[in-house]
Amino acid sequence: MECQNYGLNRSIEREYLNLNPLQRGGVLSAAAREALYDFGDGYSVCDYCAGRLDEISKPSIGGFLEDLAKFINVDAVRTVHGAREGKFAIMHALCDNGDSIVLDGNAHYTSHLAAERNHLNIIEVPSTGSPEFEITPEKYHETLENALDTHGEIKLALLTHVDGNYGNLTNAKKIGKICQDAGVPILLNCAYSIGRLPIDAKDLNVDFVVGSGHKSMAASGPIGVLGMKEEWEGKLLQKSPRHQKKEIEMLGCTSRGAPIATLMASLPHLIDRVSKWDDEVDKARNFVSQMEEIDGVMQVGLRPTNHDLVRFETPFFHEIAQKHSRRGFFLYEELKKRKIVGIKRGQTEWFKCSAYGMTEEQVDYIAASFKEIAEKSVN
Amino acid sequence: MECQNYGLNRSIEREYLNLNPLQRGGVLSAAAREALYDFGDGYSVCDYCAGRLDEISKPSIGGFLEDLAKFINVDAVRTVHGAREGKFAIMHALCDNGDSIVLDGNAHYTSHLAAERNHLNIIEVPSTGSPEFEITPEKYHETLENALDTHGEIKLALLTHVDGNYGNLTNAKKIGKICQDAGVPILLNCAYSIGRLPIDAKDLNVDFVVGSGHKSMAASGPIGVLGMKEEWEGKLLQKSPRHQKKEIEMLGCTSRGAPIATLMASLPHLIDRVSKWDDEVDKARNFVSQMEEIDGVMQVGLRPTNHDLVRFETPFFHEIAQKHSRRGFFLYEELKKRKIVGIKRGQTEWFKCSAYGMTEEQVDYIAASFKEIAEKSVN
Repeated sequence: MECQNYGLNRSIEREYLNLNPLQRGGVLSAAAREALYDFGDGYSVCDYCAGRLDEISKPSIGGFLEDLAKFINVDAVRTVHGAREGKFAIMHALCDNGDSIVLDGNAHYTSHLAAERNHLNIIEVPSTGSPEFEITPEKYHETLENALDTHGEIKLALLTHVDGNYGNLTNAKKIGKICQDAGVPILLNCAYSIGRLPIDAKDLNVDFVVGSGHKSMAASGPIGVLGMKEEWEGKLLQKSPRHQKKEIEMLGCTSRGAPIATLMASLPHLIDRVSKWDDEVDKARNFVSQMEEIDGVMQVGLRPTNHDLVRFETPFFHEIAQKHSRRGFFLYEELKKRKIVGIKRGQTEWFKCSAYGMTEEQVDYIAASFKEIAEKSVN
Repeated sequence: MECQNYGLNRSIEREYLNLNPLQRGGVLSAAAREALYDFGDGYSVCDYCAGRLDEISKPSIGGFLEDLAKFINVDAVRTVHGAREGKFAIMHALCDNGDSIVLDGNAHYTSHLAAERNHLNIIEVPSTGSPEFEITPEKYHETLENALDTHGEIKLALLTHVDGNYGNLTNAKKIGKICQDAGVPILLNCAYSIGRLPIDAKDLNVDFVVGSGHKSMAASGPIGVLGMKEEWEGKLLQKSPRHQKKEIEMLGCTSRGAPIATLMASLPHLIDRVSKWDDEVDKARNFVSQMEEIDGVMQVGLRPTNHDLVRFETPFFHEIAQKHSRRGFFLYEELKKRKIVGIKRGQTEWFKCSAYGMTEEQVDYIAASFKEIAEKSVN
């Protein structure tokens, strides 16, 4: 048989400034590029395995997991295939079919899918709605109390640390305490925070954290991290009665090649970059100010933003699209001419973007490009 | 914080002949090496996603999955994180807590873990035991009939196409027919066959197949394939009521980076190499003959072998180890001097190995090295 042409090449990160928030935090570090080369083949990290991935000593996956646990301050950590797989595993280990869990109204779709795959009932904490879409500790408290009244037991609460729609940073420490006081274990979804900003799970009063290597930890996908307090190790890392070295919820081993090698190589880079998180926030705020100089462009979500992922409502560009010969495509095309990508083709009513990891000059250039397109379009 | 030194480098595949059966089929093709370079960053395949991984058109994941389905002759296929994750998903979609499933006595430990994670009861079809360890259709039939008598309903049967201990190729076609006739859906674990030898799922009378990208498909781990007959699509690929594009059992998307890019790049190479499978079997048989010239070395499992993974019992080397100054390490060390690795350090009683993908000359060199070590050790 003959294969189709899959168009299997990608030069976006080499040739363009990519504003897609999904892609900004997963760009490999230089050390990860080297690890990718060495560990590209199949099961590459398993040469010296004696039965447990997390105990392999060459390369030292055991040592890496110790460091990773320290980095996010958890008692135990495993790599999983992504934040979603971590959430699924936690729900699977803690809950039974038909149980109810509480989660915030800005939760990622994969939090819903992990619950649905576990046949769980979802109780949502509503956000404050437009324009801030905030998840307040008060509302979380109220919803959790009501859920406990109605269902007697809530086996898990989930909070999205930074959501993927507005880049809102939630008050995890306060909500963690609320759950703790109510005796409900809480999982913090840190897909957009671990690897970007400093995370101290114990200080945040959470039982579990999940993070995403490909989203925020300069690693090749798919890989995530699952960190937990000691008291949950028995449940989450329970061993098979038949294969006594193997952890059931992990199906024995999880990450088996380039993703874990790249994540290991990137850890020193992550330790360094989270210490400069304030600069990233300043850059994002500066970007927002410049963008809002265009009349009819405004950031929604909490203001000033506390994250690089920002969402704009852009009625200005949407009006232009109505009359433009290229209709909704004009914005994408004008940006692309200027070597900027990452805003979805055809989208002009609103968009999310991020300049994480870019220089001030690049950010200024991007903002200036938007302004230039705006001016050109009205003339 | 300071990171430990993880010893993150690997040159085994460049500098040694690696006999570890786990590593032979996952060595990247040249095209996959190129894809690895382009798609190393984070979520690299998701630039043009409109909500469904399996429908992305650039790179054409949709086109690739069509070709992959044709390659193994299934109606629908998805990539998963590995064969084990595919087995878990099938069991999860078909079975309820406490259900019983039938599987063969040579099943991989991950088949057991997938069942344990789903709280299933395992009924085993025993092999014929030493020295052949064969899973016969007759015994499979008998066990399945007994299980049906005892439990009324068996929701799934599993057969290991080629097991990882003896490299025994089972009669999937006949056992598939037995399950079909009994009205029990059957899953064929092809971790050691898809990508090495031609697979036609329909001709083999199976409902599901799983394969492993890192084990046998020249792809960067972790990635597997999950193929199914049309009648199972509704159950396995059921969509979320809340997020209507997303498949629940897949948690929305599975492979999100280098693993799928490398698998896509390797597909033409796989199509070519499975057509030369007979040569690989001849090579393995030739290797066995040469090894058995050493008195006290014999292949166990089905004879002549039908797979590149072969297991030897080696009382000859074990006896030497008792008296050797380096004890059980002598074999590993002597091989390493000759640039041969992949036999576990300290292991002399028996070992598994594979010369898959090596040249005749390399195989002859390896066999000659074992003989040389044998001769040297008795003198």
